[in-house]
Amino acid sequence: MQANGERLWNSIMEMSRLGLTADGGFERIALTDADKNGRDLFVRWCKEAGCEVNIDAIGNIFARRHGRQAGARPILIGSHLDTVPNGGRFDGTLGVMVGLEAIRSLNDASVSTERPIDIVVWTDEESVRFPCNKVGSAAFSGHYRKDEALRFRDGAGISIGDELRRIGYAGDYELACESVAAYFEVHIEQGPVLERAAKTIGIVKGAQGQQFLEIHVDGRRGHAGTVPMADRRDALVAAAHMICAVPEIVRNGLGDPGVATVGSISVAPNARSTIPGNVRFSIDARHPLPHSLTMIVKRMEARFSEIAADHQVGLEIVPLARRESVKFDDAVIHLFQAAARALNLPHMDLYSGAGHDACNLACRVPTGMIFVPCAGGISHHMNESVAPGDARSAADLILHAILSSDHPTAFA
Amino acid sequence: MQANGERLWNSIMEMSRLGLTADGGFERIALTDADKNGRDLFVRWCKEAGCEVNIDAIGNIFARRHGRQAGARPILIGSHLDTVPNGGRFDGTLGVMVGLEAIRSLNDASVSTERPIDIVVWTDEESVRFPCNKVGSAAFSGHYRKDEALRFRDGAGISIGDELRRIGYAGDYELACESVAAYFEVHIEQGPVLERAAKTIGIVKGAQGQQFLEIHVDGRRGHAGTVPMADRRDALVAAAHMICAVPEIVRNGLGDPGVATVGSISVAPNARSTIPGNVRFSIDARHPLPHSLTMIVKRMEARFSEIAADHQVGLEIVPLARRESVKFDDAVIHLFQAAARALNLPHMDLYSGAGHDACNLACRVPTGMIFVPCAGGISHHMNESVAPGDARSAADLILHAILSSDHPTAFA
Repeated sequence: MQANGERLWNSIMEMSRLGLTADGGFERIALTDADKNGRDLFVRWCKEAGCEVNIDAIGNIFARRHGRQAGARPILIGSHLDTVPNGGRFDGTLGVMVGLEAIRSLNDASVSTERPIDIVVWTDEESVRFPCNKVGSAAFSGHYRKDEALRFRDGAGISIGDELRRIGYAGDYELACESVAAYFEVHIEQGPVLERAAKTIGIVKGAQGQQFLEIHVDGRRGHAGTVPMADRRDALVAAAHMICAVPEIVRNGLGDPGVATVGSISVAPNARSTIPGNVRFSIDARHPLPHSLTMIVKRMEARFSEIAADHQVGLEIVPLARRESVKFDDAVIHLFQAAARALNLPHMDLYSGAGHDACNLACRVPTGMIFVPCAGGISHHMNESVAPGDARSAADLILHAILSSDHPTAFA
Repeated sequence: MQANGERLWNSIMEMSRLGLTADGGFERIALTDADKNGRDLFVRWCKEAGCEVNIDAIGNIFARRHGRQAGARPILIGSHLDTVPNGGRFDGTLGVMVGLEAIRSLNDASVSTERPIDIVVWTDEESVRFPCNKVGSAAFSGHYRKDEALRFRDGAGISIGDELRRIGYAGDYELACESVAAYFEVHIEQGPVLERAAKTIGIVKGAQGQQFLEIHVDGRRGHAGTVPMADRRDALVAAAHMICAVPEIVRNGLGDPGVATVGSISVAPNARSTIPGNVRFSIDARHPLPHSLTMIVKRMEARFSEIAADHQVGLEIVPLARRESVKFDDAVIHLFQAAARALNLPHMDLYSGAGHDACNLACRVPTGMIFVPCAGGISHHMNESVAPGDARSAADLILHAILSSDHPTAFA
């Protein structure tokens, strides 16, 4: 059985037209009218495909194709329909549409399964509007209490609960994690690894742990003309030495998957003719192995302290959030690997550098993810691009995984 | 004859109370009500000291103590009364008050001079409000036409001419550069050199030339989690290597007085989890020797190009304003050196790293400057601090210079 690649592609394109921006980007910020329009289209398609649609308290949508066994635990397949501001067409939407295409293909072939299959749309994966992180999948997995999650408010003071009621997605369906057999998510890679390796499918072994730090460097501001070089305690020069050290520390013997980034910096007073007195910059360090992540941070602390001493500047290293790495389920990984081999799809294992709804599910439900390449690794941008054949291959793989695990001993 | 140090100090303190800010800083932005109040107090004091006060078209104030010879060319002594936002008590004000103290001391001693002595207050030295540079002394020296200078507008669209009329300082006095014998300016050093060398008086030989550059570094933005280190073209890491190179280039064999500063930087998108795609930063390079200034810039261009190639980022070096170095008048420098020796004041020669009204005058009028130490080199800040004894020594030196050059052959 094969997925209908053209139908899958057309569905993605039709969904992307809901939320076009003046700049040519694609935008369905969570719980806005555009998000409602995307949800409504998805729900219509699911009903047309014979699914029973349910909404839970946090607005997650579960579209069920019933199985032959009344009490069998469902397979969940999904992702999200919300986007970042001026985002792309595939981030999130691809995973939802692959789930829909799997069900449509099963319908076309008149194949019924033992288990129910639920296509899931998680609320607010992108987390750009409300002060919480991937609230839909997090609340489902017990990382937030749903009643508390409904009270998060955006910058305008509007709560998630208010917006769910306004757009008609405040439900009362309850699906317990424990009653779910497995969760499959297809997503664009958002990085260049698959494209560079010429692979169609990435089988995600887990997600990197992540440590955020904020670095404060305090020197002495002064006049750019009157303070001799030898008398300076220039906070920006010291910070620049630290920023140069970051890639060296990550590359140095801690393994290929580790990354660290200085993404933002602020300088005071940031005036052309004043020696910078104070610099703040961010560190985002990631590694799939908890010990290696800890080592990266320790090496930064040691090296930054040396640099601060050399430049006679004050240093404060403020640890912000640490998210531990996630390991996806071995049984699901093996299922995906077998499917990729059976379908003869060029594939490789990799780690996710980004967070996903699947990372929330992973601690409660046997979970696996499939990545497809996106051109140039570009995402969160109107130029986000996926090859139609790769999208279809992902749908084929998911179909294969559904059918080959449709027996009571899988995910037992 | 000696200056009255206590009177000088009290005048500085009284002037500083006009323009107190809520933060404890001192603020008389050019042509605001606070600036008017400072000017009014100065004019009252000058009239009380028997001076004839005249205002020119750009609002410069000339307070003349007449000499015995009707046609003799005047000595000008002055600086400015305007400040930066939340500035200090001494930058500018010290030089004006030293001029006033010199005249008060001559009055006390009933000493008349051959030449007239004018205390000058130049309009808007700090240049933080209007889009022009040291407009009062520049217009006086012919760097701007006065009628054009009056039309410069601040951010609110208010012109210099409008504000001068509003505060009552739009005059029609004309004093030609050619009719001036010499210009003396006392100023705080705004750097740490005199304090470090334990000198009371700095005799300024000239001002450093200055080259502004803007550096554009264009890399490739990407996701901080998904792009492996080896695939990155991180604009901020490349820029950090360039910023580290700046002090090395200046220190490297081009002589002690050269300085270069990266004072401001902007990063796009400046988000914690995005690899920076674009960085802009400023360079402010200064050196008293034109050739050395050119060499500093050439070395930066060469080194930055190497770094850009290593990091596979685009580089654009945009030359902005270059101000050539200024050499003060040898006769005035010798006069000040002789005065310092006669008064047994610990003194040294140095270059000014900052621009001053005296730099505008220097090309038209025999000009010299005296620096006094300021604690820690701090200026443009509420903590700007000068020792009362050093302020008095500067007034003594100026008095000595006036009297020892009060003959027709000086500055001939």
